Amino acid sequence: MKPRAYLDWNATTPLRPEARAAMIAAMDLVGNPSSVHAEGRAAKSLLERARGQIATALGADGADIVFTSGATEAAALACDGRDLHCGDIEHEAISAWCTPDLPVDAAGQVTVTDPTKTALQYANSETGIVQALPEGLAVSDLTQAFGKLPFAFNWLGCDMGIVSAHKHGGPKGIGALILRRGLDVPAQLKGGGQEMGRRAGTENLIGIAGFAAAAETAARDLADGVWERVAGIRNILESALSAAGNETISVGKVSVRLPNTLCLVTPGWKGETQVMQMDLAGFAVSAGSACSSGKVRASRVLRAMGFDDTAAASALRVSLGPTTTEEDVLRFADAWTAQHRKARIRAQEG
Amino acid sequence: MKPRAYLDWNATTPLRPEARAAMIAAMDLVGNPSSVHAEGRAAKSLLERARGQIATALGADGADIVFTSGATEAAALACDGRDLHCGDIEHEAISAWCTPDLPVDAAGQVTVTDPTKTALQYANSETGIVQALPEGLAVSDLTQAFGKLPFAFNWLGCDMGIVSAHKHGGPKGIGALILRRGLDVPAQLKGGGQEMGRRAGTENLIGIAGFAAAAETAARDLADGVWERVAGIRNILESALSAAGNETISVGKVSVRLPNTLCLVTPGWKGETQVMQMDLAGFAVSAGSACSSGKVRASRVLRAMGFDDTAAASALRVSLGPTTTEEDVLRFADAWTAQHRKARIRAQEG
Repeated sequence: MKPRAYLDWNATTPLRPEARAAMIAAMDLVGNPSSVHAEGRAAKSLLERARGQIATALGADGADIVFTSGATEAAALACDGRDLHCGDIEHEAISAWCTPDLPVDAAGQVTVTDPTKTALQYANSETGIVQALPEGLAVSDLTQAFGKLPFAFNWLGCDMGIVSAHKHGGPKGIGALILRRGLDVPAQLKGGGQEMGRRAGTENLIGIAGFAAAAETAARDLADGVWERVAGIRNILESALSAAGNETISVGKVSVRLPNTLCLVTPGWKGETQVMQMDLAGFAVSAGSACSSGKVRASRVLRAMGFDDTAAASALRVSLGPTTTEEDVLRFADAWTAQHRKARIRAQEG
Repeated sequence: MKPRAYLDWNATTPLRPEARAAMIAAMDLVGNPSSVHAEGRAAKSLLERARGQIATALGADGADIVFTSGATEAAALACDGRDLHCGDIEHEAISAWCTPDLPVDAAGQVTVTDPTKTALQYANSETGIVQALPEGLAVSDLTQAFGKLPFAFNWLGCDMGIVSAHKHGGPKGIGALILRRGLDVPAQLKGGGQEMGRRAGTENLIGIAGFAAAAETAARDLADGVWERVAGIRNILESALSAAGNETISVGKVSVRLPNTLCLVTPGWKGETQVMQMDLAGFAVSAGSACSSGKVRASRVLRAMGFDDTAAASALRVSLGPTTTEEDVLRFADAWTAQHRKARIRAQEG
């Protein structure tokens, strides 16, 4: 049996060994961080140490880190009730709270009118395209950018940032809202006074320990140039696939984009079909965002960039990670090219 | 150094070995449950298997289990916007969404006028007092009862139930809303279509695996009579402490209450002081609910039962678990009695 290759890192990432070890260590802590006894104080100490590690990794020292159950909850905290606008390329967890009326150009860039009333992602999960964030931005979804792009939250010029642990080697179900010092958000989860009154509920201590270890390691990897190597492998893949035929478009090739992401549009060959064929061939890839319970539709992101419905339903996202090898992507290129050839023959016969 | 004894199981419980093992196993699953490829399907399979285990443990087969980040989020989903009423003995995560105007008697029982507009806990976290749940109840907080009292959700006669993993040996930061089949709740977290559209956000897979293993083990322990043994140890403790002096009241002694909970009121001896003195002596106990960032105030629950402010600020909660030994509680009784004697001498001198 051939080994499988996981090439869907933008959907979720394998747990980093450092995160795993931190989580297992946290399993031994008995206390509730809100309890005043020694066991409670030990739990509280882990919580606050993790908060500090994450702030440092994000370049957000002095900013407030509010732990949430993930980016979706952080987005609700940041955006609900604020009458924000966005381009229709934001993740649904953001666009659900915003008016998606900002223009998006063919290169995937959003034109921002009033940054103080705008939510704008740093990098897109489907295309990897990076936005130029304007000063004074209300909210930025940093979920895909964190760990892959060098930035410091304190220098981004935005009021609030959103991150999720499982996009950079931490566990699923934990994330954070980052607030520029001095800002506040009203609690949506009410009850206990956790997170300085901004988010009630006993803290996900094991998840937070994994989040912090993953963030710290992700920042170190980034500084060590790990993603430059990944970009090199992505570029090898891109060249190999482009050779298959010139109707395939590599979206964002001329834009600034994430080092690990390749978004290919092969009009008429459904993304859904490609994903299933590649899955059978031993490769985990996706057709756009993973977050809709397996539903596969024309990509909203690609439509916003001007692709027609057929093209927008024919996208394949390949997203790599630090453990992806050149061999993985070359095997993928072979398998994809073989299926692509068959699809063209079927299309010509059909 | 004397070993410490953790006697604060109602605040949070040690992670069960079965939960720990399930969580570590889940760490190896790479996929996002929403992804359609093999890795995604494996994650989805764990998720749905866990949901089934939890439904069975709760006696809720056929009901819907919506995973949340804990009881606090489940309470918000269940109660927000429904104009519910409650007694002022509910956890703040419930009472924050309800009008706390239902009468509470001296025995801690709530008089329900209209069950369909009422949230009523099954068991109180501070006193352990168990409520007689009326048929047709809108919402019941089952957080403290689940795993300690034998019940089947499907026979409780309530529309929605709330549970939290870390109260019965699972991890913190994961819980569920249980919905009687046919009912629905509007999503508060929007974005992806997870949890059948009721709760967006990538699922806390590792936490859910721990939750399911803990729930299954908790149900087995309960059936095996583990809590009868715990009740025996609690009663030994209660007798030992009652012997210390007759001004100490054991709240709920004549009520139906949880097998593991002892709530002692010693008017004039602050609960906060007792907790700190016991902590120094090697025992983790609490003065009421843990969920308010270490703030210790007069207990709202005891005030609702008619205790005056002095008495309500003089409560100590000792809550035991399956691994608590008779030796633990006898050592505690000695330490508490010694401090109690000193407190009485100080009070007489003062």
